[in-house]
Amino acid sequence: MSDELTFPPVESVLSELAEYVAIPSVSRSADIGTMRQAASWVAAQLAFANGRVVETEGFPLVRAEWLNAPGAPTVLVYGHYDVQPTGDLDEWASDPFEMTIDGDVARGRGVTDDKGPVLIVLKLAQAFIEQRGVLPLNVKFLIEGEEEIGSPSLPAYVREHAAELAADLVISADGAQWRPSEPSLSTASKGLVSLDIVTSGAKSDLHSGRFGGTVANPVHALATILASLHDDQGRIAVDGYYNGVDDIDDRRRAEIAAVAFDDADYCEALGVSELHGEAGLTTLERLWERPTLEITGVRGGGKYSVIPHTATGHIVSRLVGRQDPDAVVAAIERHVRAIVLPGIDVTMRVDQARVPAYRIDAQHPAIRAATAALNHVYPGDDVLLAVIAGTLPATTLFEETIGAKTLFFSFSTSDENLHAPNEFLRIRRIHEGLRAWEYLWNVLAAGPHVLEPNDFLMEAAR
Amino acid sequence: MSDELTFPPVESVLSELAEYVAIPSVSRSADIGTMRQAASWVAAQLAFANGRVVETEGFPLVRAEWLNAPGAPTVLVYGHYDVQPTGDLDEWASDPFEMTIDGDVARGRGVTDDKGPVLIVLKLAQAFIEQRGVLPLNVKFLIEGEEEIGSPSLPAYVREHAAELAADLVISADGAQWRPSEPSLSTASKGLVSLDIVTSGAKSDLHSGRFGGTVANPVHALATILASLHDDQGRIAVDGYYNGVDDIDDRRRAEIAAVAFDDADYCEALGVSELHGEAGLTTLERLWERPTLEITGVRGGGKYSVIPHTATGHIVSRLVGRQDPDAVVAAIERHVRAIVLPGIDVTMRVDQARVPAYRIDAQHPAIRAATAALNHVYPGDDVLLAVIAGTLPATTLFEETIGAKTLFFSFSTSDENLHAPNEFLRIRRIHEGLRAWEYLWNVLAAGPHVLEPNDFLMEAAR
Repeated sequence: MSDELTFPPVESVLSELAEYVAIPSVSRSADIGTMRQAASWVAAQLAFANGRVVETEGFPLVRAEWLNAPGAPTVLVYGHYDVQPTGDLDEWASDPFEMTIDGDVARGRGVTDDKGPVLIVLKLAQAFIEQRGVLPLNVKFLIEGEEEIGSPSLPAYVREHAAELAADLVISADGAQWRPSEPSLSTASKGLVSLDIVTSGAKSDLHSGRFGGTVANPVHALATILASLHDDQGRIAVDGYYNGVDDIDDRRRAEIAAVAFDDADYCEALGVSELHGEAGLTTLERLWERPTLEITGVRGGGKYSVIPHTATGHIVSRLVGRQDPDAVVAAIERHVRAIVLPGIDVTMRVDQARVPAYRIDAQHPAIRAATAALNHVYPGDDVLLAVIAGTLPATTLFEETIGAKTLFFSFSTSDENLHAPNEFLRIRRIHEGLRAWEYLWNVLAAGPHVLEPNDFLMEAAR
Repeated sequence: MSDELTFPPVESVLSELAEYVAIPSVSRSADIGTMRQAASWVAAQLAFANGRVVETEGFPLVRAEWLNAPGAPTVLVYGHYDVQPTGDLDEWASDPFEMTIDGDVARGRGVTDDKGPVLIVLKLAQAFIEQRGVLPLNVKFLIEGEEEIGSPSLPAYVREHAAELAADLVISADGAQWRPSEPSLSTASKGLVSLDIVTSGAKSDLHSGRFGGTVANPVHALATILASLHDDQGRIAVDGYYNGVDDIDDRRRAEIAAVAFDDADYCEALGVSELHGEAGLTTLERLWERPTLEITGVRGGGKYSVIPHTATGHIVSRLVGRQDPDAVVAAIERHVRAIVLPGIDVTMRVDQARVPAYRIDAQHPAIRAATAALNHVYPGDDVLLAVIAGTLPATTLFEETIGAKTLFFSFSTSDENLHAPNEFLRIRRIHEGLRAWEYLWNVLAAGPHVLEPNDFLMEAAR
C-alpha cells in the first residue's frame, strides 16, 4: 500500500459535523426548505465530484460522481442526511440540534445515524483529492433524505436512473457496527413493514361515568388486539407470519454460539432486569435470525376521564429470510379482522415502505476487503460477522435495479442511542473510520474487478 | 304560591355566561391566577350574600351566605367553577373558550359542566333580591374549583368549616339530568377511584430493529395488563372488584324495565354500531346499577420505530353500592401484580380522590319537592328517577361532615358533550332552570322543616 493520507484534526471534523447536525432534517416532520438546506450542505462537501441537490417526488437527494479512474472498479456510496424525530425533549441532556461534546462522545440527533458516518467518507474523499489529486477508484455518491421514513421516493428515482448509478458495489455509510467491543461487518439486514391499527367507537369522546358500561371502549379494544399479537411464549401469534422463515440450522447455531455475548452485560447496558423474547432461542438467535413484531407507539384519550372515541397503535415488523412483506401485512390484517370486537370499528393504515430482508454472502469479495480494512485499523481484533437487525431499504433496491450488492461500512455503533434521545457518536470512530475507508478503497482499487472472487484481496491485506 | 319572578332576557344571561366561559379555568392545567379570576367572577355575582374567594390548599373556592329568613330551612348550594381540559382542539367546531351560539344551543368548555347550571341559580337569587328584597329561605353557597380533578382540597376545608356550612339540605347545581326527552332527578351517583399504570423496560427507547426480539416491550406489557381487566363477557375480571355490589333485585329490574329506553336510538345518538358491556344485563341496568372500569387514556412511544422505554395507561373505576374505594384500588393492584411480565417494571400511581357511591331515598322530601318543581316547569311530563352514572365527590363528603343529603338539581343534560369536545348547553334550559329553582325554593320554604317527612311538599305543589 502507498503512504497513508493525512487527515484533518478531529476538532475540525467535529466542527463541521456540528454545523451539519444543526440543520434539523427530521424527515417525519421537517419542511422541504430544511431538508433542502441539509441536502445542499452535503452537496457542497461534494463539490470536487459535481455534488448537486436533485429533486424527487419527496425530499431531495444528493448526487455526485468522480469517474476519473479508468479500469478501476466503480463504487456507489450510499447514506442519508435525514434524521429521526427527537422524541421527548425532556429526555435529552442537551439540545438535540446543538451538537455537544461530552467526554469522548459527541451528542446530537443524527450524529451517528447517519450524519457522522456520511461525513467520514466525504472527508476521506476530500483528503484523497487534496493530497493525491485523484481517488483510487471511481466513486458515485447517493445521499438520500427519506431513509428514516422508509425511503418512499428512492425506488422510482433509482429505477429511472439505474444506468447513471451503475456500480460494481454499493458501500453504505449507514448500518451501524454491532457493538463497541470489536470491529464487525454485517452480512444481512432485516426487512420491514409497518402499520397503524386504529380502533374507533362512538363519534366523540364520552364521559366515562355517564356512558360507562354501555359502549365498547376503543382503548380496551386496541389493548385486546395488541395483546393478542404474541403468545405467552413470546412467539408472534399471527397465523402465517413465519412463512419464509427457516429454522436456524445446526451450523448457524454453532456460529452464533461462538460469538462472545453475555446476557447479563447486555441487560446491564440496556437497564433491564431480564431479557425477553421467543422461548427456546438464545438472545443472538432471536436478534439475528428471527422476525419481530414490535408495538412502537400507542395513543388514545388522555388522563381526563373519558371513554376515548379512538385509539391508535403503531406496529413495526422486521423480516428475515424469504418473508414476503405483502404476505406479512396480509397476515396481520387477517389476524386483526378475526378478533371479535362488538361496537368497535377497526381500520388499518399500512405504511408505504415494504422492504424484504437482505443478505450478502460472507465470502463475497467486498466482505473480505472490508475485513482487511478493519484488521488494519483494529489490529489484533477479530472482525465479527454480524447481522443488522435494523432495516436498510436501499439494499434490496440496489440489488434489483443495478445488480450490485451492498457492503455496510459504517462507523456508527448500534449502542449509540440511534432513534432515541441522547443519540451519540464515539469521537474516536471519526479517525478510525477515515483510515478504514482509505484502506478499503485502496484494497478495492488494487484488484482487477471487485466482483470476481479471487485472492487479490487477501493478498493486498497482508 | 306568590306571583312568579320576572327573569332577565336570555341574551343577557348568555352574555354573562360567555364572559364566565372565557376564563379558562381548567383545573388540570390552569395556573392559580386563572382559577382565582374565575372564582372572583362568581364571588362578584354573589355580592348580595357577601360572596368571597377563599383560599385552600389547592385552588380557591367561593363562599357566600344569605341568612335573613329566620325559621325557614337552610340550604347549601354547591357547584364548581373549574372545567375539564379541552382535549384535541381540532375536534372543536369553535374556540372552547369563546362561547358560540349555534342554533338553540350555546357551545364552549364548561357551558354545561358546570358554569351554566351555576349561573342559573346565581341569577335566580339575584332576581329574588332585586324583586322581593329577600330570598324565601336561608341559602349558603359553596362553589369549588377542583371538582374535575376529584376535589382534593374540599374534604379538609368542609371538615374544618362544618359548622359554618351547616344546612338542612345540599342542593347541587352539578349533576346533569339524564336526557333531553323528559325531566329527571337522580337518586344516586357512582363513586370513583382512578390510577395510572406505568410499564417500564429499558432505560431509554431502543431501536425496534437493532434490539427487537431481545427485550420486553413496555407497550405490549401494558396492552396485556389492560386487556386482562375484562373477560370476554364484558365483566370486570379483577378478583374482588364486585365486593359490596348487590345483584339487581326483581323490584329494581322491573323499575328499570319500566323506563322508556331504546338501545337503537342510544346507538344512533352516540354513533356506535352496537352497544357493549357486561353480558346478561340491559343497558340501563349496566349504566345505573353496575360498577365500571374504563381505560380513559393510553400513551407510549410514537410513530417512529422504537421500543418505547415506558408506557402509561389511565384507569377510571366508577363504583356502586357498598364498594370500598380503597378495596377496589387494592384489588386492581393485586390483579396487576399477579401478571407475570418478564423484564418489565410496573408501577401504579393512585389518584388522591377516593369517592364511595352515593344514594338519596326516592321518598326523601327533597326529591318530592324537586319533583313538584319539575312538574311545574314541564307540565304533563312524568319526572323520571334516574341514576347519575358519573361521580359527584361532594355528596358523600357533605353527608359525613354536615349530615345533609344532597339533591341534584341541574339544568345540564348528560348528552351535552360533558368532558368532550363541543360541550354545549340547550339555551331553553336557562329559563326552565330559573323557573324550577324559584319553585323549588318556594316549596322548600313553605314547609316547617324540609327534613321532616310530611305532606306539605305535595300539598304545596298542587
